[in-house]
Amino acid sequence: MTPLRAVAYARRHRPRFIEELKEFVRFPSVSNQPRHAGDLRRCASWLAAHLRRIGLEQVRILPTKRHPIVYASWQRARVRPTVLIYGHYDVQPPEPLAEWKTPPFDPVVQDNNLYGRGACDDKGQLFTHVKALEAYLKTQRSLPVNVKCIFEGEEEMGGSPGLRSFVTRNKAALRADAAVMSDTRMLGPGRPAIGYAQRGNLRFEVEVRGPHQDLHSGNFGGVVHNPVQALCDILSGLHDSDGRVTIPGFYDTVRTWSDQEREYMARTGPKDADLLSQAGLSKEWGESGYTLYERITVRPALTINGISGGYQGPGIKTIIPSRALAKLSIRIVPDQDPREIVQQLRDHIARVTPPTVSSSVRTLAVSRPALVNRNHPALKAAAFAYKKGFGSWPVFLRSGGSVPAASIFQTELGTPTVLMGFALPDDHIHAPNEKFHLPNFFQGIETAIWYLSAAARLANARAQQKPQEEWTA
Amino acid sequence: MTPLRAVAYARRHRPRFIEELKEFVRFPSVSNQPRHAGDLRRCASWLAAHLRRIGLEQVRILPTKRHPIVYASWQRARVRPTVLIYGHYDVQPPEPLAEWKTPPFDPVVQDNNLYGRGACDDKGQLFTHVKALEAYLKTQRSLPVNVKCIFEGEEEMGGSPGLRSFVTRNKAALRADAAVMSDTRMLGPGRPAIGYAQRGNLRFEVEVRGPHQDLHSGNFGGVVHNPVQALCDILSGLHDSDGRVTIPGFYDTVRTWSDQEREYMARTGPKDADLLSQAGLSKEWGESGYTLYERITVRPALTINGISGGYQGPGIKTIIPSRALAKLSIRIVPDQDPREIVQQLRDHIARVTPPTVSSSVRTLAVSRPALVNRNHPALKAAAFAYKKGFGSWPVFLRSGGSVPAASIFQTELGTPTVLMGFALPDDHIHAPNEKFHLPNFFQGIETAIWYLSAAARLANARAQQKPQEEWTA
Repeated sequence: MTPLRAVAYARRHRPRFIEELKEFVRFPSVSNQPRHAGDLRRCASWLAAHLRRIGLEQVRILPTKRHPIVYASWQRARVRPTVLIYGHYDVQPPEPLAEWKTPPFDPVVQDNNLYGRGACDDKGQLFTHVKALEAYLKTQRSLPVNVKCIFEGEEEMGGSPGLRSFVTRNKAALRADAAVMSDTRMLGPGRPAIGYAQRGNLRFEVEVRGPHQDLHSGNFGGVVHNPVQALCDILSGLHDSDGRVTIPGFYDTVRTWSDQEREYMARTGPKDADLLSQAGLSKEWGESGYTLYERITVRPALTINGISGGYQGPGIKTIIPSRALAKLSIRIVPDQDPREIVQQLRDHIARVTPPTVSSSVRTLAVSRPALVNRNHPALKAAAFAYKKGFGSWPVFLRSGGSVPAASIFQTELGTPTVLMGFALPDDHIHAPNEKFHLPNFFQGIETAIWYLSAAARLANARAQQKPQEEWTA
Repeated sequence: MTPLRAVAYARRHRPRFIEELKEFVRFPSVSNQPRHAGDLRRCASWLAAHLRRIGLEQVRILPTKRHPIVYASWQRARVRPTVLIYGHYDVQPPEPLAEWKTPPFDPVVQDNNLYGRGACDDKGQLFTHVKALEAYLKTQRSLPVNVKCIFEGEEEMGGSPGLRSFVTRNKAALRADAAVMSDTRMLGPGRPAIGYAQRGNLRFEVEVRGPHQDLHSGNFGGVVHNPVQALCDILSGLHDSDGRVTIPGFYDTVRTWSDQEREYMARTGPKDADLLSQAGLSKEWGESGYTLYERITVRPALTINGISGGYQGPGIKTIIPSRALAKLSIRIVPDQDPREIVQQLRDHIARVTPPTVSSSVRTLAVSRPALVNRNHPALKAAAFAYKKGFGSWPVFLRSGGSVPAASIFQTELGTPTVLMGFALPDDHIHAPNEKFHLPNFFQGIETAIWYLSAAARLANARAQQKPQEEWTA
């Protein structure tokens, strides 16, 4: 099946695609704000109806504890490989509203960009795949591969809380040869990138409690163990002076990479100076013996995301606070086991908490690292598709961040996920004036068309994977 | 001059005194809330007019940067000693309003208590001295001593910001043999206490800055020094494992007390178990070698009053925060010099801040310790007055807290301050349903009457002080 007719269709219908994407963006589907729950339901219904109209089958709106998942499939070609297409229709809150130049939920085209909350993250990028499917179905009444679509509404809530149990409950139904998602950035205009590794993420709250209520620091300063001070002692002790995490056993299962892989990373990845300049810093920090790119990708990291305790207003309130709270995240890498690391942290905190205060650790979210062999046929197919869609070969990058869906598909289904992003670094994702660059929308659709075509060869390739099992996360 | 006629007058006029105190309490003179600035001015005018009416002279309303000071005096007896009477007419905010059983600024008498914000702290206690002066002036057209009154409107703002410069500018005019104030608690009904020592208080903000804006902890976790972590390291290092402050030189000038004084404290002060039970704790903390009472009074203490940095809302936001802030207070004791300790902290923080972040220290307020020899005649006079007013001898206690006015009078005027409090532990000071126990109001007035009478002997006693200079703070 040639993708050329689909590509021609997609080019002819660009103005209509923009209008449809505007309709999609108009739903204020802000998953983190409970008052928008109805908007998420309406957005899901609209998306489901749209998927039905373009010719997908088994279209369903599946409830979760919060916001529904939209599922659709096309499985007439039972012998061919199956591609799982993932995206999310929920969006970040638009606040601060005063900084938007156009209304966040009344999308506007200006200078070849579509402005609006979710235009890029992820409605626009999700839509590239929907339009690619439409282009095949409307021109050839068929797809080059079997397709299953999962479009969720909880990605922006952090950790895609409803997705894992949904996938776990539907393993058989969701089986696929590869998953693809477009929810990441390119390096710049015309410079595509494919993500092949992400760190996992464990999120915690650590609380230290002292007196039952705040005490007067004059009356008791010097005889009461201050929980803020005890928390600082605990947090301070989590790293040694070389920037290494001190939790016993923490590094035991961290995979050591071959010189060959490290050389590949050094050749293709960002340089130390690039990362420092992206962070806006002049001085690095962290584990010696590794490049900065290695530290943020193949090495684990423990970060204090927030801390609070006692009086935080203007001036001073002379109290000994009754409690203090820190929010931590631990980025884990192959072959760290999330449960083992959670237990190590819990044991460590319990062990170092002095008897003068009490402490507790709450685990808020857990996601595993995700890792696909760079030579996996699914990634080769994506690289080929980018070359056709954008005219350039993509680079292959590891990411320090975490993509819950990719880790869920890998751990629950054994399915590798291709991260084929179409966002530009200046698309203002999660910020005011989010936009989607329309040339990327159009080239993204064509890339998605070519990807489905290239993915048709995946089934033959599946056997090739076996010997490369050192890559399993 | 016998105080008996004044006492009789005070007993006769009790119902009117209550009505007048209610008028005083009706002004919502909340110094911390700028919208009440006019109420503070009106309250000051009312108080000034009242002082004129009872026969005080040189009554003035003196502006400061924020809320005015009401000054009044009576100095016809130039050869007799002079007593400086201090109080404050500003009050704490009444919030949370929903927890008040009666309106905070519409005072009500119930069960021998007057309920209302400021009824006890400090309008009611201040008023005991005003009514004592009235009782003399209306019955004998004279006072046993010269009197200068300073009633300020900024005490509840923390540190009495306008008082020091006012006192410094008016040293000669304010010269006195002793100061007296009623703004502290008794041990319980019928159990008076006189404070003879308070710690000083230095208040700081310590800020640590890292990246210019929050960074994604996935993308940069492991290569950027986290300012929250750096702040925790700094704060954690401020104490050693024995609970001693590690700032170099911190203890160099701390006075060592004689065995005799420590025995007195052990005999008269609260026991370790008392202090622990007041704090609601089962385990002590702090410097070994000292009782808990000693640790909170004759030993300095460094307390973290609050800490904040990064994300503090529900769940987690996976960021490396750009900055972190801690609020510290250091309670200092004789003979620590506030300027020296401020410099020591600044030098220490600068020295321990790693080159990967930057730090700054802001000094928010400074007050010195205050200390009066227990055998000072002004305290003996107060003890005698309590015996007459309440029927019990008071205990002499050191306090771990700080009384800015007492330290200002001591350092700027060389005047010892007698802390002669009439509040009960359950008067709900700074809390909803503040009250003043009316028997304490009446006995307080009589105590104040007896104090003025006893203070007449202060001038003769002044010479006796010289040899006891080891007590100077």
